[in-house]
Amino acid sequence: MSTYKLTYFPVKGLGEPIRFLLSYAGISFEDERFDRDDWPKIKPTTPFGQVPVLDVDGKKIAQSVAISRYLAKKSGLAGKDDWEALEIDSIVDTIHDVRARLAAFHYEENEEIKAAKRKIADEVVPYYLERLDAQVKNNGGYFVGGALSWADLSFVALLDYLNFMNGSDLIEKYDNLKQLKEKVLNLPAIKSWLDKRPHSDF
Amino acid sequence: MSTYKLTYFPVKGLGEPIRFLLSYAGISFEDERFDRDDWPKIKPTTPFGQVPVLDVDGKKIAQSVAISRYLAKKSGLAGKDDWEALEIDSIVDTIHDVRARLAAFHYEENEEIKAAKRKIADEVVPYYLERLDAQVKNNGGYFVGGALSWADLSFVALLDYLNFMNGSDLIEKYDNLKQLKEKVLNLPAIKSWLDKRPHSDF
Repeated sequence: MSTYKLTYFPVKGLGEPIRFLLSYAGISFEDERFDRDDWPKIKPTTPFGQVPVLDVDGKKIAQSVAISRYLAKKSGLAGKDDWEALEIDSIVDTIHDVRARLAAFHYEENEEIKAAKRKIADEVVPYYLERLDAQVKNNGGYFVGGALSWADLSFVALLDYLNFMNGSDLIEKYDNLKQLKEKVLNLPAIKSWLDKRPHSDF
Repeated sequence: MSTYKLTYFPVKGLGEPIRFLLSYAGISFEDERFDRDDWPKIKPTTPFGQVPVLDVDGKKIAQSVAISRYLAKKSGLAGKDDWEALEIDSIVDTIHDVRARLAAFHYEENEEIKAAKRKIADEVVPYYLERLDAQVKNNGGYFVGGALSWADLSFVALLDYLNFMNGSDLIEKYDNLKQLKEKVLNLPAIKSWLDKRPHSDF
């Protein structure tokens, strides 16, 4: 049996989709959360100076989306054919476009620039959310193909982080996304992960 | 036989990896390039207000990386197993992290912010490039598994765009990346695409 270790900051952030997918697949893993002060020591041990990093039997790999897709394949969450896999990938990359818009202002230190980037996000993010909500509405309550996929798990796993950057609940006005959230959080494997994960705000 | 149409601005940009992969797979496609003035008309016809969009038999799909992965599977460029597929995905996402760093200053209109973002990119981008160069060196002249993959094609297809944003040749000091570039540009299917593609600066 393979051994899995996930290395990340002590937050949900970009690590949480991976933790959701490991939990859903029933894979036990070491959830290594390091103090931010230790980042300069850990950074040189990562493939490209970034976390999360997944270690599988001693092989280290970076990039949260790539890792999530790999794990999704282990539990049949990556689509029933190549076209569905493409649709799922497309939704996930769109979700990360939303994340990038929010991150652009959230991590900006200059207040003037921050306000300008916030203004852009406030216009663009609802444009995406409306379409993501419609996508769920038109696909039987899931993002793709009327069935649970790693797009659904990734979106819900990222929500706390996205909401934290946004400063308020992004999906408040989007009923289909809210129902999707409830559905995912009530999956037995996810429920049990939520019960045991360490607390973090985002 | 399926019909393929790629819709994008009249540039290489994010469309070129898709065009490389279609060409490599021997798939003939309509290469629809629209004038920037027509973007407001075209935007509402796209799934999420973004291009490139690939139309396959009337089904429209967005996100260049997702589309590239889908096409790569058609010609055996997506890895020989799930782990290789993961390694390829990880490299591609890292390349796009580089792109995002360059885009952050290139598209910034405020000169002061632009200079600040440029400074960050000038520190971070070589960090990535050194590691990408070493990756090629340690993997038999390709990014993953000693064999051509869509990571190689995507990187080389994006180079003109990345160099354009950077203002100079990013890989000048990186011999393994330079050799990879030559190898990809000399693939018969890619050579023939280069010969027939319309001219654009980036």
